Amino acid sequence: MSTVEALTSAAAAAAPELDALGRAGRARLLRAAADEIETRRDALIATAARETHLGEARLNGEVTRTAYQLRVFADVLDEGSYLEATIDHAGDTPMGPGPDLRRLLVPLGPVAVFGASNFPLAFSVPGGDTASALAAGCPVVLKAHESHPDTSVSAFEALQAAVAAVGAPAGTVGLVHGREAGAELVTDPRITAVGFTGSLGGGQALRALIETRPEPIPFYGELASLNPLVVTPAAAAARAESIADGLVAAVTGSLGQLCTKPGLIFVPADPGGDALVARMAAALAEVPAGPLLNDRVAEGFATIGTALRSRPGVATAATGTGEGALPALLTVEATHFTADLAEECFGPLALLVRYESEKELVEVLSTLPGSLTGTIHSADGDDLAPLLAVLRPRAGRLLFDAYPTGVLVAWAQTHGGPWPSTNTVHTSVGPTAIRRFLRPLTWQNAPEHVLPEELRDGFRGIPRRVDGVLRIG
Amino acid sequence: MSTVEALTSAAAAAAPELDALGRAGRARLLRAAADEIETRRDALIATAARETHLGEARLNGEVTRTAYQLRVFADVLDEGSYLEATIDHAGDTPMGPGPDLRRLLVPLGPVAVFGASNFPLAFSVPGGDTASALAAGCPVVLKAHESHPDTSVSAFEALQAAVAAVGAPAGTVGLVHGREAGAELVTDPRITAVGFTGSLGGGQALRALIETRPEPIPFYGELASLNPLVVTPAAAAARAESIADGLVAAVTGSLGQLCTKPGLIFVPADPGGDALVARMAAALAEVPAGPLLNDRVAEGFATIGTALRSRPGVATAATGTGEGALPALLTVEATHFTADLAEECFGPLALLVRYESEKELVEVLSTLPGSLTGTIHSADGDDLAPLLAVLRPRAGRLLFDAYPTGVLVAWAQTHGGPWPSTNTVHTSVGPTAIRRFLRPLTWQNAPEHVLPEELRDGFRGIPRRVDGVLRIG
Repeated sequence: MSTVEALTSAAAAAAPELDALGRAGRARLLRAAADEIETRRDALIATAARETHLGEARLNGEVTRTAYQLRVFADVLDEGSYLEATIDHAGDTPMGPGPDLRRLLVPLGPVAVFGASNFPLAFSVPGGDTASALAAGCPVVLKAHESHPDTSVSAFEALQAAVAAVGAPAGTVGLVHGREAGAELVTDPRITAVGFTGSLGGGQALRALIETRPEPIPFYGELASLNPLVVTPAAAAARAESIADGLVAAVTGSLGQLCTKPGLIFVPADPGGDALVARMAAALAEVPAGPLLNDRVAEGFATIGTALRSRPGVATAATGTGEGALPALLTVEATHFTADLAEECFGPLALLVRYESEKELVEVLSTLPGSLTGTIHSADGDDLAPLLAVLRPRAGRLLFDAYPTGVLVAWAQTHGGPWPSTNTVHTSVGPTAIRRFLRPLTWQNAPEHVLPEELRDGFRGIPRRVDGVLRIG
Repeated sequence: MSTVEALTSAAAAAAPELDALGRAGRARLLRAAADEIETRRDALIATAARETHLGEARLNGEVTRTAYQLRVFADVLDEGSYLEATIDHAGDTPMGPGPDLRRLLVPLGPVAVFGASNFPLAFSVPGGDTASALAAGCPVVLKAHESHPDTSVSAFEALQAAVAAVGAPAGTVGLVHGREAGAELVTDPRITAVGFTGSLGGGQALRALIETRPEPIPFYGELASLNPLVVTPAAAAARAESIADGLVAAVTGSLGQLCTKPGLIFVPADPGGDALVARMAAALAEVPAGPLLNDRVAEGFATIGTALRSRPGVATAATGTGEGALPALLTVEATHFTADLAEECFGPLALLVRYESEKELVEVLSTLPGSLTGTIHSADGDDLAPLLAVLRPRAGRLLFDAYPTGVLVAWAQTHGGPWPSTNTVHTSVGPTAIRRFLRPLTWQNAPEHVLPEELRDGFRGIPRRVDGVLRIG
């Protein structure tokens, strides 16, 4: 039996036990995991800093986010509405006598999670996919990202300690390394869903493998995103400097290695826009270069950056300083915008598209693929309807006078957008990400003793829909 | 421009208008469609009876169900919880200051719906997929089933009349015929999701086509289902006759052409089981044969029935009488059960598996693929845990002392189960089927005037989650 088989078998064996722990038991597990992550904060940061070059401040925030996120999902379990508990008592209906029907969302089974390179904690081993899958009641077999293997092991040990501390089955979490193991994992018949955060190419390769399975399973990929950001003429006229400073920070934060980096920025071809571009160029020229997360990211950044610079009409407005991946601002006139400019360049680079008119702006926007986000900086009096009409079908999150980096873990969050940013109709951040790992199950005419307690008549404490009416607790 | 292109272009143009109609406008559309279907009841029944041989009583029920279902989705729109409206006001969070985030489920865009052969109305042109997609705000391009083209056209005209009556955009509904148009439809870039009810082979072919698209879209298939039903020794001893009568009705109703037909029935190898089988055989021998829905169904029924009969240990316990597809009961001992007996035979045939012990029963059940339903007939004192442990991961609906045919349109319904019964983690019957055609969208720091009214602070009347707390209206 291979390592993967051993882990998926253990996960399959753990699945009913993890489900049987109930919401309270799994909330204890998630809180214990948060505690373990925080207990190991310094060691995790040191290891991740060595492996990723992300810096201690950023990694410290990531530990905080990771622990917070685990506790948010514990709260989600306590609150219980995610179960969509529904009771329709037997009775007459326009279709004749109806049976007693009771519905709950139940866990899918063992889930494979592929960690991201750019968030070695919050979107990796102990990250959002893991937290939401465990909350759902799904054991998780993790694929460590090859660019931070030690961080993965350390974080995994924290999860294992939490599993042991609350008496959850040992198969609740597993960890594998290497591309071969990853391929074996997604085609293993015991795996019921895959969560993935990474490159478009990597996601497509995994998806193609999953398609070879006799039994289809959901693939939840978070892939590539341009995150178009529009500055209206009125906004540029009113506050060119503050927008420029915000943009440079958003483009170069974490050296641009964020899936929500605004990669394509639409600036009017007018004096306000000129001021904005000048300010951005001046600020960006001061930003130091640095090492990217791994060789593949560095190679992609160099290749795509070079390709973008070679396109007709593309000019370099500014580059940063120092050794490593150089921050860069490119510019192009909207009339020169072509589809091959609409490619994500993962790293500290943004393309500024200078537009002459709203018509021209909307025309270019209408050619863009889907993104996680779409942003408008405007001023009072701007009619946003034409921009929203073209951005809304292309984004999972619409921002106004804000920057798309920074994805709050909150009920109202959506981190997911049209292809190629994701391939699904779900979010991967926030409480509702749990929905990815659940399926509905209905009990018909069931004796009370076989029902989950949340579906019994006397149960209180979670929102339920009873005979069509939603009730709180 | 081909017919398909013309219709999908019209659908794409209609999408924002259909969304802008709002919940109230789309509820009017659905109620108008229900009215139109009922107004045309007699003509629809006459046409469908001619094309499907299903009989007027059954078709009359289908008209009622279709109109009822359209009105249920209108009620779902009025109630509004399906939007999952969520507001997180700006404020401090453990991760620092949080922005104002507001989330709603929004329509995907134009949807393709492939009608089923076995429900020419309720699961075809004006059926559940169409009702839920229109409710979601998605224009629908329909593929008529080739075995009831006139019924499809008549039902489509009813939908068109409703669209005109409420002033919805003409592209809200479209209809195409033929396999080539179907293939063109699912690969059309304007189509954002596909609903399909039909054969496993047909569904797999469509899915393979969809996989060739550059942009992946969800395929919601309702395909093949064995619907295992277990009779415990105590249940057989207590009420062999009533179970036998119920089973024969379930196996032969609509000539077995229901996706929830119990095709695999587990009966103890004991005197109670003998009595049950004898009663079933006697009752089934009286059931008249008849014409199946179309040549493909008839061919599949004959081929699979012949194959099942040829397997080692399989005996024929009874056959019906008359001309056409003969109802049949086959039997096999559990020790002879092999994977090739676990194939759906669409038509009036069931295989009775005689088991000696619970251990033997559970062993066979553990080899079965997923089904829409799993059923247990038991008596007081039976320990159902071992059966539930093996049935629960294999079904979308668990029934107790009941029969799986008859799928009530109700909030607590699940019509969807593990592969190959469906390929998704959703239901295709009941209000929550609407979730298939929606995606989350978040507005961040949005000025009030660009927000949908359901996300504005003062709005009342639908359930919303505000700052983490679910509130009714």
